[in-house]
Amino acid sequence: MQPKAITIRELYARHSQGEDLSALPPVLLEGWIRTNRDSGSIGFISLNDGTCFKNLQVVYNDKLEGHDVVSHLLTGAAISVYGKIVLTPEMKQPFEIHAEKVEVLGDCSADYPLQKKRHTFEYLRDEAYLRPRTNTFAAVFRVRSVLALGIHEFFQGKGFVYVHTPEITGNDAEGAGQVFTLMTPDAEGKLSDTEFFGRRASMTVSGQLHVEAFAMAFRDVYTFGPTFRAEKSNTTRHASEFWMIEPEIAFADLEDDMDLMEECIKFCVRYVMEKCPDEMAFFNERIAPGLFDKLNAVLEKPFRRMEYTEGIQILQDAVKAGHKFENPKIEWGMDLQSEHERYLTEEVVKGPVFLINYPKEIKAFYMRENDDGKTVAACDCLVPGEGEIIGGSQREERYEILEKKMEAIGNKEGLEWYLNLRKWGGCIHSGFGIGFDRLLMYLTGISNIRDTEPYPRTSSQLKY
Amino acid sequence: MQPKAITIRELYARHSQGEDLSALPPVLLEGWIRTNRDSGSIGFISLNDGTCFKNLQVVYNDKLEGHDVVSHLLTGAAISVYGKIVLTPEMKQPFEIHAEKVEVLGDCSADYPLQKKRHTFEYLRDEAYLRPRTNTFAAVFRVRSVLALGIHEFFQGKGFVYVHTPEITGNDAEGAGQVFTLMTPDAEGKLSDTEFFGRRASMTVSGQLHVEAFAMAFRDVYTFGPTFRAEKSNTTRHASEFWMIEPEIAFADLEDDMDLMEECIKFCVRYVMEKCPDEMAFFNERIAPGLFDKLNAVLEKPFRRMEYTEGIQILQDAVKAGHKFENPKIEWGMDLQSEHERYLTEEVVKGPVFLINYPKEIKAFYMRENDDGKTVAACDCLVPGEGEIIGGSQREERYEILEKKMEAIGNKEGLEWYLNLRKWGGCIHSGFGIGFDRLLMYLTGISNIRDTEPYPRTSSQLKY
Repeated sequence: MQPKAITIRELYARHSQGEDLSALPPVLLEGWIRTNRDSGSIGFISLNDGTCFKNLQVVYNDKLEGHDVVSHLLTGAAISVYGKIVLTPEMKQPFEIHAEKVEVLGDCSADYPLQKKRHTFEYLRDEAYLRPRTNTFAAVFRVRSVLALGIHEFFQGKGFVYVHTPEITGNDAEGAGQVFTLMTPDAEGKLSDTEFFGRRASMTVSGQLHVEAFAMAFRDVYTFGPTFRAEKSNTTRHASEFWMIEPEIAFADLEDDMDLMEECIKFCVRYVMEKCPDEMAFFNERIAPGLFDKLNAVLEKPFRRMEYTEGIQILQDAVKAGHKFENPKIEWGMDLQSEHERYLTEEVVKGPVFLINYPKEIKAFYMRENDDGKTVAACDCLVPGEGEIIGGSQREERYEILEKKMEAIGNKEGLEWYLNLRKWGGCIHSGFGIGFDRLLMYLTGISNIRDTEPYPRTSSQLKY
Repeated sequence: MQPKAITIRELYARHSQGEDLSALPPVLLEGWIRTNRDSGSIGFISLNDGTCFKNLQVVYNDKLEGHDVVSHLLTGAAISVYGKIVLTPEMKQPFEIHAEKVEVLGDCSADYPLQKKRHTFEYLRDEAYLRPRTNTFAAVFRVRSVLALGIHEFFQGKGFVYVHTPEITGNDAEGAGQVFTLMTPDAEGKLSDTEFFGRRASMTVSGQLHVEAFAMAFRDVYTFGPTFRAEKSNTTRHASEFWMIEPEIAFADLEDDMDLMEECIKFCVRYVMEKCPDEMAFFNERIAPGLFDKLNAVLEKPFRRMEYTEGIQILQDAVKAGHKFENPKIEWGMDLQSEHERYLTEEVVKGPVFLINYPKEIKAFYMRENDDGKTVAACDCLVPGEGEIIGGSQREERYEILEKKMEAIGNKEGLEWYLNLRKWGGCIHSGFGIGFDRLLMYLTGISNIRDTEPYPRTSSQLKY
């Protein structure tokens, strides 16, 4: 075994803690060449070892053993470098390494698809398994990783219990949405949809119904896992497989629910800003100028809370005042389009807003009916630049009302257990769902959901 | 809105920090009745609010408003209790609450399936959505939640990047194992297996191949997500849906891999012991006597490392010496049965042992061939009481050798991208997989995998 390598992350950490890295004995690094240019007597390799966003500059000269090989190494090659760290306070990077020895750990042939030049996101999507080697995707996927931990820290720090709700299900939370049905070969080798479980099974579209049962045991719970939609929506915001965060809180009404949503969003903003400063600065500079302003504005003040009915009134007034919507027919009872949501959050509130108490006809069966008999205790959180980012509701805890609704839409069969939760210690409770990939889009400024997912799955796309 | 309730968790935390809870003004609690017994002048409710393993005793007398209703409340009902905390240093529980007001938040009818008496695990499995309300399952699912966070803390604390490898895949890591195929309706409404993605897709059995690509960008990565097997293995250790942890480390050989496995297992043991003391004590006393001894033994010394070849020799010697195996035919080249693994770890090593360098014929195509031409750099970690708990290997990083193997088993088509990783900066790398549910079985002493999963999925079982 070789002496243990040091990582670029550790070098930067120790440097920023004030340690004089030039006092170190020679160190060993391992990583991949981002660029290599040699001018005869002196050469420079930009080395990335995957442990941090920044590269390390490797300086070598023509006295280096194997100089001819090293100077011809191509972008993408894996190497180890042994040498002294030298401080370069007058340069952009604070230190570099002067190579005494360079070893090739994994060569890279000239047909490597990621050459120095800039590639489009479309091109890189086609090389999904290689794109984490680029700056943009290294940043996206590190933030994705860090934010996932942040989600767990947020909820478990508040005592929530994480529940792995099932991926395979016989139910379908929304009562709508196309699903993937599971098949296994029967005795003759023919695909059957009932052979394995004895009934039809599909991939879940939401863990909410299942996690509600756990809220009736643990009070505060959340799921965080993949969900699936077999929808052929070819938009920048839809994927067939994505991760959802679904908290559920007992003894809690819609107000408590909104308090939690707001705290959660603000936590996530602060978390990625603090934990991924290099990556976030990159997004702010290169991907979505103005990102920091947008995110800082979220932190500044409490989110507005506005009745759906008031929202409709404001939109109708805007039309009268001459504002042009693509869908100008605004009337109470309609589902708002993205342009309407964005008008409210961007032009009216100029910040995040909860729209609450929607007409019951356009919302799911499990949402709690308000006393007006027309609306349910649902809320959508709308944010500038994105529109809806979270949907939540207080759940219907009254057995008879819920039963009537389920009978009306015909989904009571198979969901008797869900109804039973209202019979045996069922208290008021609320919850919400955040699409993790969309949250990531919002926090990074990445505008296509396919560019936030390691291997995106959409209709007709299953390359890897 | 009511005054905010305090939780039982918070009461215990503040009490154990030395705070005098009897000095508090009256507090509000919300929770569910575990038991309620009334002797006329005085009554006792054992209240659980889901926030901690312990219950709180609620004492009420016949002066209580609505005493008649309260004294008849049944197990399972949701209530709020307002009253003073009273210290009871001479009792088993350190404090109780003297109710000044009890409100019914959600009644519970007499047909509630979880009555006071003890239920079998089989019975409770059939009521999966209710069982987190029992002591055993409250403990299991809290440890599951806490351990999941622990896994993330362990890996991210070491700089690993968490990768959401895809659940829907066109590949199949092991080249074996029955899979669930995905179907969607075609234009005529008939289920089709190619209509959606344009090719056949199935649920993943492992994220390893996909995560290897990310190790070539981030150095140290891991997946942690659901995986699926459409196997009709009706054993206590098999489920159709389970969560896997799959770390992958670049610039690392099998030794490094084993170091990481050992560190990870020891971390997990320490983590649950420290973070869930009440739950772990319950398992040790009620579920698996001797659990603490078993777990403490794991922490004590370095794990043994033993060649597969040596293991075979030891087993053959044991047979000669008269040890009775159900499968007594031991020969080099065979796959060890559970009884053999357990003999090695329980009788020979008397502790955890890594068995390394297995015959290549019985291991997966991606494992690195050793110089002997007969074995691969694979290892299984065997632990007393369980047998194999982790499987890992150094991966084949040599293009030509890997290509030949993939051609031989006919899985090169569709996996060219995986092979390409060896062409473009592919360095030595290693990884392993831990079944999260099995790890949980090991740490809690729960002997059936169905009792570690919130809603277990096995063949013919899809009730919820």
